[in-house]
Amino acid sequence: MKISELGEFKLIDMVAELIEASRDDSPSWKDLIIGVGDDAAAWKGNESVQLGKMDCLVQGVHFDFSYVSWEDLGWKALAINLSDIAAMGGLPRYALVSLGLPPSTEVKEIKSFYRGMLALAKNTGVVIAGGNMSRSLFVFIDVSVFGNTNGADNNLMLRSSAEVGDKIALTGCIGTAAAGFQMLSKKIKLDPRTTDVLKRAFVRPIPRIKEGRLLIENGVKTAIDISDGLLADLGHICDASRVGAMIELEKIPIHETVKKSFGDKSIKFALSGGEDYELLFTAPEQTIKKVERSAKVPVTIIGEVTATRRTIIIKDKDGRQTKPDKTGWDHFKNN
Amino acid sequence: MKISELGEFKLIDMVAELIEASRDDSPSWKDLIIGVGDDAAAWKGNESVQLGKMDCLVQGVHFDFSYVSWEDLGWKALAINLSDIAAMGGLPRYALVSLGLPPSTEVKEIKSFYRGMLALAKNTGVVIAGGNMSRSLFVFIDVSVFGNTNGADNNLMLRSSAEVGDKIALTGCIGTAAAGFQMLSKKIKLDPRTTDVLKRAFVRPIPRIKEGRLLIENGVKTAIDISDGLLADLGHICDASRVGAMIELEKIPIHETVKKSFGDKSIKFALSGGEDYELLFTAPEQTIKKVERSAKVPVTIIGEVTATRRTIIIKDKDGRQTKPDKTGWDHFKNN
Repeated sequence: MKISELGEFKLIDMVAELIEASRDDSPSWKDLIIGVGDDAAAWKGNESVQLGKMDCLVQGVHFDFSYVSWEDLGWKALAINLSDIAAMGGLPRYALVSLGLPPSTEVKEIKSFYRGMLALAKNTGVVIAGGNMSRSLFVFIDVSVFGNTNGADNNLMLRSSAEVGDKIALTGCIGTAAAGFQMLSKKIKLDPRTTDVLKRAFVRPIPRIKEGRLLIENGVKTAIDISDGLLADLGHICDASRVGAMIELEKIPIHETVKKSFGDKSIKFALSGGEDYELLFTAPEQTIKKVERSAKVPVTIIGEVTATRRTIIIKDKDGRQTKPDKTGWDHFKNN
Repeated sequence: MKISELGEFKLIDMVAELIEASRDDSPSWKDLIIGVGDDAAAWKGNESVQLGKMDCLVQGVHFDFSYVSWEDLGWKALAINLSDIAAMGGLPRYALVSLGLPPSTEVKEIKSFYRGMLALAKNTGVVIAGGNMSRSLFVFIDVSVFGNTNGADNNLMLRSSAEVGDKIALTGCIGTAAAGFQMLSKKIKLDPRTTDVLKRAFVRPIPRIKEGRLLIENGVKTAIDISDGLLADLGHICDASRVGAMIELEKIPIHETVKKSFGDKSIKFALSGGEDYELLFTAPEQTIKKVERSAKVPVTIIGEVTATRRTIIIKDKDGRQTKPDKTGWDHFKNN
């Protein structure tokens, strides 16, 4: 059945029912006053800092249905926003979802989309509290997420607080999502385990919410999530903090399967690929060591914050230094 | 200059500067911790109810640049969201803006867009706290607005609280925006004053925030804003409250210039046109009379809530009753 046959309001009713069916005992549901179905979503506030984030996925720009399913898309559209709340050290709580849809979209596709999104919402204690749907020539998805800090501290991790001498560290591996994108978009055949690892990294990124809280609890002041790529996102920190950075190529955590399948290309994926949604952060070395001991994901020191303002230097295993120029994805320039 | 020449990050910097230049002493600016330029926007919370709303304008669906300027579009994209917060009786505080833009968009067009949006933001004490921009084949604009109730009462106006015997009332006039749309899209030439009134109604709707607060303060429990059209929006109240409605055709407030310029068509505009962003509300008659005395815009009783579940009846001046079937805009059906 086409959504053009079902009609907008029945489609909204359907989504409201899907969301209602996911109701559980999480604090966000308990505090929800009005979700889908009225003019605005409403929930009880408190004394902590409130956080808001909005990000978008556009068909033909961020994704293509030849290699991403609607269900994966639902997961990913929420994940990229939760990741930004995580990178501030916050707790995401509510999401609003705006969909641009061609009238020929299948109703089951919208169900799949929400299935994927609600799976992640449930995992993370987030409630989808509203949104809207509009006709469009192609699919676009805008998600807004609101969260807050833990009332106990109310600290935030910013891009602007890196200090010369801080070590630079990463959660998890990077470059895997870009490898996944390459594999999916170019229809590269790999063994089933590799295919699964790479695909999941690209279509089902895991926002590092717990790790963000752990960083905050250990006193980390500077973080960003890897969305544009290591060089671009480190560049954002350097710009905002008016510092430079030196990274050691050999230390960048790249998944073994990516190295095996893509060889030297894996370095490019790690430096400029983006969409890994791991946390990139800076702090004194002993702080990072403390984080490393408590974290359930690998934490790797990859370099150091320097005084060479806004300049990133890459050092290879032989000590040769290069200054990269291509830094990541730009939406309006030719990439 | 094209935004493709400027690049995404410089474009964001430019927007951040435009927003920063609008800084004033409003409470929202005072409480802002992080606006544009970090992973998420952050502001101090409080003990009141928090409100969130997200709505979208799509080129070729909601607007066309042959008759709407970028500046008007900026105003309108924010206005339609503030209107929903107003219809809950809330105070809007922060907005996030997501733009889908063709790379050939002119930088000055984005400036114009934000000029229009910031004019309304300043009028209403709202801070644009973040958002994102993405490449797209055509323009789409998603805006999220967060607000809260006045801490003193924390009441909300819902769609689901209409009671049989309540009178149905409207702020201002309706049908004017639809007349404006007709005039602009069909290039109809009218006298300068009429042109101005109709155009402003369509491109610069005024969200009824003060009126929403006034309704709440006088104990009104049920409201919605006129976005889909009187019949459709009244239908939303009837559905949510499990009631019916009877409206008197002669009482519907239609602007004199609309009647003069469009004759009988003005009734169709008022019933099904939508986009007026006036408040439609229900309450006991004496409550509405109190509102009428304090309001700075006209308040008109147009009918009554009935027990004929989900059925709307229109009574004309001769007492003839009709049941309308066409109720308003549906995004996915053929309208």
